[in-house]
Amino acid sequence: MDFKLLKTDKSTSARLGEITTDHGKIQTPIFMPVGTVGTVKGIHQRDVSDDILAQIILGNTYHLYLRPGVEIIKQAGGLHKFMNWKKPILTDSGGYQVFSLSANRKLIEEGAEFRSHIDGSKHIFTPENVVDIQRIIGADIIMAFDECPPGTADYKYASKSLDLTMRWLNRGIKHFDKTKPLYGHSQTFFPIVQGGVYPELRKKAAYEISELGREGNAIGGLSVGEPTEIMYEMTEVVNEILPKDKPRYLMGVGTPANILEGISRGVDMFDCVMPTRNGRNGMLFTSEGIINIKNKKWENDFSSIDPNGTSFVDAFYSKAYLRHLFASKELLGPQIASIHNLSFYLWLVNQARLKIADGSFSEWKNQMVKKIGLRM
Amino acid sequence: MDFKLLKTDKSTSARLGEITTDHGKIQTPIFMPVGTVGTVKGIHQRDVSDDILAQIILGNTYHLYLRPGVEIIKQAGGLHKFMNWKKPILTDSGGYQVFSLSANRKLIEEGAEFRSHIDGSKHIFTPENVVDIQRIIGADIIMAFDECPPGTADYKYASKSLDLTMRWLNRGIKHFDKTKPLYGHSQTFFPIVQGGVYPELRKKAAYEISELGREGNAIGGLSVGEPTEIMYEMTEVVNEILPKDKPRYLMGVGTPANILEGISRGVDMFDCVMPTRNGRNGMLFTSEGIINIKNKKWENDFSSIDPNGTSFVDAFYSKAYLRHLFASKELLGPQIASIHNLSFYLWLVNQARLKIADGSFSEWKNQMVKKIGLRM
Repeated sequence: MDFKLLKTDKSTSARLGEITTDHGKIQTPIFMPVGTVGTVKGIHQRDVSDDILAQIILGNTYHLYLRPGVEIIKQAGGLHKFMNWKKPILTDSGGYQVFSLSANRKLIEEGAEFRSHIDGSKHIFTPENVVDIQRIIGADIIMAFDECPPGTADYKYASKSLDLTMRWLNRGIKHFDKTKPLYGHSQTFFPIVQGGVYPELRKKAAYEISELGREGNAIGGLSVGEPTEIMYEMTEVVNEILPKDKPRYLMGVGTPANILEGISRGVDMFDCVMPTRNGRNGMLFTSEGIINIKNKKWENDFSSIDPNGTSFVDAFYSKAYLRHLFASKELLGPQIASIHNLSFYLWLVNQARLKIADGSFSEWKNQMVKKIGLRM
Repeated sequence: MDFKLLKTDKSTSARLGEITTDHGKIQTPIFMPVGTVGTVKGIHQRDVSDDILAQIILGNTYHLYLRPGVEIIKQAGGLHKFMNWKKPILTDSGGYQVFSLSANRKLIEEGAEFRSHIDGSKHIFTPENVVDIQRIIGADIIMAFDECPPGTADYKYASKSLDLTMRWLNRGIKHFDKTKPLYGHSQTFFPIVQGGVYPELRKKAAYEISELGREGNAIGGLSVGEPTEIMYEMTEVVNEILPKDKPRYLMGVGTPANILEGISRGVDMFDCVMPTRNGRNGMLFTSEGIINIKNKKWENDFSSIDPNGTSFVDAFYSKAYLRHLFASKELLGPQIASIHNLSFYLWLVNQARLKIADGSFSEWKNQMVKKIGLRM
C-alpha cells in the first residue's frame, strides 16, 4: 500500500491524498460503505461500485468468521472473489463486535473468548488469529485486534484496557509481519489508537503507534456513547501526533457532519453503518437536510427524492413513491434509501476533496454542517 | 389496443402474436411480473425493464386501492407516473384478493363488501367502482370484477357464482364503455371466464364472453387448488371457444411447466407471484431444473448461479455466495433470486416464441417440461 499526501488545507487540518492498493486507488478523504457479511445490505455490488461510486468497502471479520466461515472464504479464493468485488476491501478485526454483539465474552491476556450471537458456539479471537482470518479474507487493509471500552469507561478501566490493546497490537504486528498474503495481492496492517476519552491515554497510544511506522493508522473507540465534542477533541489530540504522511482512519464515524468535522481535523478514512441502517428505517441524508420519508408530509410530494442527488434513484423515484414503499413495507424502500444515502456520503467526501483542492474547504464545511443537520 | 396473430403452431395450439398498447408493444406469449402494490418486490424498475426484459407488468387493484389509495395515484397522474414505469400495465380487478385476503367479506348482488386486511376499515367493490379505480390507476388493460370460487367448489356453487360473475361482467362493461381514460392513453377491458372445474359452465361462459367481442379475454379461477390436469382441461375447453384473433390471458398461472403447457393450449398471457415469492424463499427456477439455494450442497459451489441465465446476476454471483446471503438472511439474497427467476420466466416465454416461429415448439416444450421440473 502506498499513500501520497497531495495537499493540506491552509485553515484546517483537512488533507487531500491518494492510497494505492493492488485493487486500485482510493482518493482521500473517503467514506467506506459497510458490507458487514460480504454484502452492502440491499445493494448489488454493481451499484455500490458504478452508481454509488464507492472506492473501497469494509467487511466485518467477526461476522465473516461466523458466516460463511473461513473455510468457505478460503475455498472461494478470498472475499473479493466470493462476493465478486474488484476494488479494495478493509476488514475490521472483530474486536468491536465481540464486545458489542457476542454473548458470554471473556477477556483474557490471550485474547477474547466469546459465544456466537447466532448459535451460541464457543470461539476465541486472539491478536494472532484475527490476522490469520483477515489473511484468509484477503482484505487489502487489515485492522489490529483491540479492546473497545464503552465511551463511559473510567480512567482506570480505559488505561488498563489500553495497555492490553497495546500488548495485543505488538503481538498482532509480529504475527502479521511473519505471515504472507494468500492470494497474490499485498495486504497492510493498521494499528488502532485507543484510550477512551482521556487525552493523556490517547497521546501515549498515538506516540507509541507513530513509532511503529505502519502504512496507516486508525482511531478507534470513539462514537461509542461519548459527547460529540469529546470525539472531536480526541481526534484532534491524536491527529497532532500521528504521522502526516500516513492515512488516518476514524473508525465507525458517523453522521455527515461528523465526517466533515473529522476531515477538518485531518482524518482521511471513515466508515459507518448509519447511511444504510438509518436508510432502511426511512431516514434520508441530503445536502439540504434530513428527510424522514415515513412522514405524512411526503405523501403527495411527487418531486424527485433528491434533486441534488447523484444516484440513479434520486431522479428516478419520487418522495411520495418512496414513502408509499415504506408505508407498505416493500423491500424496494430500504433498497432505494440505502443507495441514496451511500451516494450522498460518497458525494459529500468527493465535494470535500474538491473544496480542499480549491482552497475553500473551511468555508464550505461550515455552511454544509449547518444545512445537513436540518430536519426537513 | 391491437392484437396481431402472427402464427399458429401446427402440432399444438400455441400462438405467436403481438399486442400494441399506447405504452408499447408486447410479444406474445408473454409472462407478466407481478408488481402487487406498485413495485415488483425487491427489484428496481430499471432492472425489471432492462435486465429482466419484462414487456408488461401487473398491478393489484385491491392492494393499490388500499395503499397508497386512489387519491394519491390520481394526483401522481396514474400508476405509470407514480412508479415511473413506461411500459404497459395490466391490473386485476381485486376480486381474487377480496376473497383471499380481506376479512369479513360479504357477497351481495351489488358487489363485495370487505374489511381491509391492513386496518380493518370497511369497503365495497362493485363491478362499476373497480372500473373507476382502474381508470384512476391508468392500467392499459383493465380486468372485470369477478367472484373467484375455490378450486373445490361444487357444481351448484360454481354455477351460481358464474351467474353472478356474468351479471357483474355486463355491468362492468357497460360502465367501462361509458367512461373514459384519464391520462390520454387508451385502456381496454378484458372479461374473465369463470366456471370452476366444470366444462359445461366454462363453455357457457366462454361462449357468452366470445359474443361480447372485447379486445382480449381471460381465464380465471384456475390454479386455485384443483388438480393440474383439470386446469389444463379447462384451458383447452375454454380456448376452443374463445376467439382466435384476441389475446387469451390465463390468470395467476403458474410454474414454468404450467406456462409451457398453457402456451401449448393457446394461451398468450400469464402472470404469477411464484418467481418472486418462491425466489424470496430461496427457490431458483433454471433451464436445468429447480435449485433450493438454501441446501448445504451449494455451500462451496462457486459456479455461477445459472450458466445459462440471461440476467446480470446469473454470471455475477456464485451459488455459494447466494446460499451464504440466504443463510445470513441478507436482503440481497431475495433480490438476486427474484431477478434470476423473473429473467428465467421471461427467457422461457421468449424461447417459446422462437420455437413457435421456427416450428419446433412441440418437441422443445416436451423436453423442457421434463427438465425444468427436476430438483437439482
